[in-house]
Amino acid sequence: MLPYIHPMKHKQFSFSRSTVDYYFNAAFADLGKLVVQEQAVLLTDEHVFAAHQKKFRGWNTIVLKPGEEYKVQQTVDMVIDQLIDLGADRKTTLIGVGGGVITDITGYVAGIYMRGIPCGFVPTSVLAMVDASIGGKNGIDVGVYKNMVGLIRQPSFLLFDYSFLKTLPRAEWQNGFAEIIKHAAIKDAPMFRQLQQRKLTDYRKDDRLLATLIEKNALIKTKVVMNDEFEQGERKLLNFGHTLGHAIENMYELSHGQAISIGMTYAAIISQHLNGFGNTDELVALLKQYGLPTYAVFDKEAAFKILQKDKKKEKTSISYILLKNIGKGVQQTIAFAELEKILKQL
Amino acid sequence: MLPYIHPMKHKQFSFSRSTVDYYFNAAFADLGKLVVQEQAVLLTDEHVFAAHQKKFRGWNTIVLKPGEEYKVQQTVDMVIDQLIDLGADRKTTLIGVGGGVITDITGYVAGIYMRGIPCGFVPTSVLAMVDASIGGKNGIDVGVYKNMVGLIRQPSFLLFDYSFLKTLPRAEWQNGFAEIIKHAAIKDAPMFRQLQQRKLTDYRKDDRLLATLIEKNALIKTKVVMNDEFEQGERKLLNFGHTLGHAIENMYELSHGQAISIGMTYAAIISQHLNGFGNTDELVALLKQYGLPTYAVFDKEAAFKILQKDKKKEKTSISYILLKNIGKGVQQTIAFAELEKILKQL
Repeated sequence: MLPYIHPMKHKQFSFSRSTVDYYFNAAFADLGKLVVQEQAVLLTDEHVFAAHQKKFRGWNTIVLKPGEEYKVQQTVDMVIDQLIDLGADRKTTLIGVGGGVITDITGYVAGIYMRGIPCGFVPTSVLAMVDASIGGKNGIDVGVYKNMVGLIRQPSFLLFDYSFLKTLPRAEWQNGFAEIIKHAAIKDAPMFRQLQQRKLTDYRKDDRLLATLIEKNALIKTKVVMNDEFEQGERKLLNFGHTLGHAIENMYELSHGQAISIGMTYAAIISQHLNGFGNTDELVALLKQYGLPTYAVFDKEAAFKILQKDKKKEKTSISYILLKNIGKGVQQTIAFAELEKILKQL
Repeated sequence: MLPYIHPMKHKQFSFSRSTVDYYFNAAFADLGKLVVQEQAVLLTDEHVFAAHQKKFRGWNTIVLKPGEEYKVQQTVDMVIDQLIDLGADRKTTLIGVGGGVITDITGYVAGIYMRGIPCGFVPTSVLAMVDASIGGKNGIDVGVYKNMVGLIRQPSFLLFDYSFLKTLPRAEWQNGFAEIIKHAAIKDAPMFRQLQQRKLTDYRKDDRLLATLIEKNALIKTKVVMNDEFEQGERKLLNFGHTLGHAIENMYELSHGQAISIGMTYAAIISQHLNGFGNTDELVALLKQYGLPTYAVFDKEAAFKILQKDKKKEKTSISYILLKNIGKGVQQTIAFAELEKILKQL
């Protein structure tokens, strides 16, 4: 591994209602420069807390049980009760230190507590750094429906401390690379080629290579969101692999990365059927190269029923993201009848 | 009663993120012109539904148990489950038909369901028409803390059908007039004089007088909110009587109007102490004239403890609304120590 000193890099991006400060190559301790410690409450989960206990010293911290199954209203109720007990008010900043579940819960609670208090995120997983912590979408699951309840509301800041990734299990790296491959597939053909030439271990071993990749992906997503914060057009592209992915994620207790990897595989096949997309094999090969599942057996009827309740659905059709080429995602409306036919053929 | 034909009056107001259409002198049936019936879900309570059953024919309607004690998360959970069952999507408009509890729950659920769907309000009480339905603040209570969780998000439209007031019990009229007197006290001395010259029965008997008063009050609040939607300054004035009012409202199961009437009384006394306000007796007399309580015995220590958790508090002080004159409210920061001293003297 190359020796690599992190120079902190500050960038500010303007969204429709506020600006967000990004601190790349930062250290967790820099948090003390961004907020007054006494006016901050940290939200994290048991895994992150156990692995980085020292970092939390001196900070008010609420520790949640880890896992998507806790991204539910009951957890929100508990966090709100604790905020009241801690005397949190509108001057308090709620800071989520964790993966996507933690940043989602943090953003949502901060959006509704006292009708909105400031929040910031310290994403601790690849997935959270390149995707979940960016763009202001937050939410909780309701039964089998993912993110059925939530808000679009930007945090005040994002702090990227790559040292959190040192303790990240391999499965979590794969999870994050599913979103990175998604970005490449819909937006960035050169990055797709770079990913083809590397493997996961390269990025795990080379800090500088990793930092560059994470920053590039954070900026891809940021740019898309800035163009279309409330998802009227371009932002929909980020749902590539997520429509079917979300439907099967809870059905089979898959990780988010596994679910959208399967979702991308089938979206590529649908793209083949409807748009003559010709690179399904290449996409499938890249997903496999990064340890992700592709073709999978799942209950198509059950998945289709969940699709029919998806947030992106209308009465008789659904908004679906397909590929035209590698690096070129497109949004298409597909009638449920047609989608059902294609799914049955598979 | 004068014969009075309602000509519907449409006004549009621009808030920071959206415009809101106001339909004064409207009839409930006009709703069919504003939304597609199949893409709307109405939310109301058992009282309103029972008294106006015919109006709801043909509309998808969710009926809640009436009362502030149901303005809680459990009700929100239930409404969300029903929206999912009804297949509500982002094209669905959620329409609250009721008093402040209903418009608060409607606005909140519409703000978080699928990260936000359109909503509209048909306020059915004087209080909701002049206050609760206006300005986009919504929320639910958490334990003894009123509106501890919620959003500021404007509805798409407000439809005023005064015929709902025909079935409104006297206590509910008094409730609404507490907010009307509040508007007069902080913003409108001439309206204060007019109210002194009339009594509740005048407004209940004279449709035209009532319609004028309601529209005037809806516009007072609208103007304040347009100037300061996110409550950085002027909007705080609308909290006159509400700080202590909210603290004692749940402690003693008072109606909102009763609670803020007592809150206004004590705020006037504090104004006397701190600002030399000289019209406490006049304000108290007007509140009494409209059937509202003023001086009341309450557990000052318990109320003070709740104040210390108020949304408007900071670490050692609280934002309080006082009067300079009739028609002139002012915001002042009072240290808890000083407030405690004044409360003890009373």
